[in-house]
Amino acid sequence: MKNLLVAQSGGPTVAINSTVYGIIKRAKKEKEVDDIYAAKFGVKGLLKEDFLKLNDYLDSQFELLLQTPASALGSCRYKLKNVDENEKEYEKILNIFRKYSIRYFIYIGGNDSMDTVLKISEYFKLKNVNDIFIIGAPKTIDNDLLVTDHCPGFGSAAKYVATTFAEIERDCAVYDINAVTIVETMGRDAGWLTAASSLARNNGGCGPDLIYCCERYFEIEKFLETIEMKLKEKPNILVAVSEGLKNKKGQHILDDGDSFYKSKDMFGHKINAGVARLLSKVVEKQINCKVRAVELNLPQRAAIHICSKTDIKEAVLVGEKAVEMAVEGKTAKMVIIIRENQEKYSVSLGETSVKNVANLVKQLPLEYITKDGTNITPKAIRYLKPLILGEMHMEFKDGIPKFFKFF
Amino acid sequence: MKNLLVAQSGGPTVAINSTVYGIIKRAKKEKEVDDIYAAKFGVKGLLKEDFLKLNDYLDSQFELLLQTPASALGSCRYKLKNVDENEKEYEKILNIFRKYSIRYFIYIGGNDSMDTVLKISEYFKLKNVNDIFIIGAPKTIDNDLLVTDHCPGFGSAAKYVATTFAEIERDCAVYDINAVTIVETMGRDAGWLTAASSLARNNGGCGPDLIYCCERYFEIEKFLETIEMKLKEKPNILVAVSEGLKNKKGQHILDDGDSFYKSKDMFGHKINAGVARLLSKVVEKQINCKVRAVELNLPQRAAIHICSKTDIKEAVLVGEKAVEMAVEGKTAKMVIIIRENQEKYSVSLGETSVKNVANLVKQLPLEYITKDGTNITPKAIRYLKPLILGEMHMEFKDGIPKFFKFF
Repeated sequence: MKNLLVAQSGGPTVAINSTVYGIIKRAKKEKEVDDIYAAKFGVKGLLKEDFLKLNDYLDSQFELLLQTPASALGSCRYKLKNVDENEKEYEKILNIFRKYSIRYFIYIGGNDSMDTVLKISEYFKLKNVNDIFIIGAPKTIDNDLLVTDHCPGFGSAAKYVATTFAEIERDCAVYDINAVTIVETMGRDAGWLTAASSLARNNGGCGPDLIYCCERYFEIEKFLETIEMKLKEKPNILVAVSEGLKNKKGQHILDDGDSFYKSKDMFGHKINAGVARLLSKVVEKQINCKVRAVELNLPQRAAIHICSKTDIKEAVLVGEKAVEMAVEGKTAKMVIIIRENQEKYSVSLGETSVKNVANLVKQLPLEYITKDGTNITPKAIRYLKPLILGEMHMEFKDGIPKFFKFF
Repeated sequence: MKNLLVAQSGGPTVAINSTVYGIIKRAKKEKEVDDIYAAKFGVKGLLKEDFLKLNDYLDSQFELLLQTPASALGSCRYKLKNVDENEKEYEKILNIFRKYSIRYFIYIGGNDSMDTVLKISEYFKLKNVNDIFIIGAPKTIDNDLLVTDHCPGFGSAAKYVATTFAEIERDCAVYDINAVTIVETMGRDAGWLTAASSLARNNGGCGPDLIYCCERYFEIEKFLETIEMKLKEKPNILVAVSEGLKNKKGQHILDDGDSFYKSKDMFGHKINAGVARLLSKVVEKQINCKVRAVELNLPQRAAIHICSKTDIKEAVLVGEKAVEMAVEGKTAKMVIIIRENQEKYSVSLGETSVKNVANLVKQLPLEYITKDGTNITPKAIRYLKPLILGEMHMEFKDGIPKFFKFF
């Protein structure tokens, strides 16, 4: 038997199930693949042999997977220790692979999940296991994976952010009194989603008046000066800020001020929330005007009802490509998206070694940010714009979208 | 000349422009109406004669008004003083009405705006002005106006809330670790939008595990006990809370704990934010598990991309009815929606005296809340469900919805 195992890992996106869809679709017509298994809750489920058999899926209901947000197979944030620290865990994984005749393993995730792909494949290499092929499929709303032009999941999150900023801009414009609205987007280490707020200008709107990405250091004093200046030009100021804004010393700005909500997740990142709220308190105190803080929060990665068709389609293709690469005998590779044509947007799929991606972060290039650090350049907008194009036809029932459930 | 004046007031909704659309559409084919004026920024614009002439609208672009969120004419939160306190303001309004030959005035707003309709019409009565007819058109995402079955704007906000809860539920289910997600909905004095979170169950989802509306007093101790009990049943607990939760003494729960963001608006209400965050801090401290606070915030009243078709259609009808009532010589009345049939949902339009609505709040009936105060009854769901039905075909360009702008 040559079986395939798939699992999802890390934070959810609205496109991650489309990659599973692509994997199942491609694997079902592949002679080199017999059974298709899924591990529930990522590598944690793999270690517990918590498996689902997916062979019998792909009926009409299964199409709903394309409009189902979050990781339908469950996910985890679980970092494998190094081999020398816990070899037993690696042995266990190999034994489980043998027990279920797993020949292909596809792990869908971000830079932390690619660390898992890397470690397992390096262990297998060490043990001269040459008949198991491990492929990473990228996903992240943060768009922070290296080598690939962009990441499945990002386009939809960006479309949500752009649409929401366009709507909030209209909302803020209704009163003719001075008001500052500060909207916080996700992204601990990379400002891609913050930059996507600029796409609210796609239809002639103003979009955010100021955009602060975490790639440039943030100075509260200068920020307040800029707000005061802008308020002389127009009454309603809309500001986009990254969750991960840092000061000149590289400290998160919440460490300078009040910290309302902090904890550490398993990978040692801080989970920050409250940048918008912190800044709104500062503006309220220093400038006499109405202030509102909005944290876009979970809907950024869950709002499938406003997903990008381009994103969903590409996520399916990435899943198909992952199967093809595994069957071709490739291992320790991640699927990448290559932008073939900028003007008439088109892409092809390629591959890279997971070594080039694992644990690394692709930040917004500095040429995408204006020199004064308060906006995004036309080059950034050219890059971002095609990723949010197209709307999916969604199936609704009783007023809300229909979702698919494996369990 | 018999001219008509329209203005928008109070907090924006996604349906308030549909009422303007209905007013213009109906007024244009009405012989008894000559010119159609709009006052920018509500009664504040009226006092400044900041007018737009709308006669020439209703071209193809104008259809976009139906998919434009927030008050396209601008809004205000401006409470007229009593006549004995500031008669000059009322005289000014009458003079402006005479100057522009305003015979019909339609004010679109909530319970505070109906206070404006009441006061102006009472002044006109006092002065024996019998040839100006003033009609209120209801709007509010809070659904808290008396007499009318429901309010334009609420159905769309409820659809956004229901869809977002369905999506967040999927997002919360991805990890198999104990986690509590607390989501805060708008509504200072009425829990209608919080109750609408239950519609996330429309498609077989679980929706929120716990729903706390502000109509029932909230006990933090009991809340923590309930969370602990629920966590024994399942790992992921999703909680919906009203912005306006109060304790047994009737104090807002933020007054018991930390207050992150408080100020007073012109009507003397507190603008509360941070109930979800406060509770998340309490849960984090008392129960050892992952906690997340989500404040749905502005998108509740701005997210037109997921509006309810039923709501938008009714908002247009309300606008048309307002014109008809004014032309029939009615004054100091508000349009109401009457639910004619519950099973095969259908409505008709009627009227009530603005006296019955101004400054009053319709809360969720206690029979809509379960006895233990942690959920919504089937009766409530039967009431709410038809209001979110139907999706609008939205026009997108470059990945985001197209909006209409008067200015």
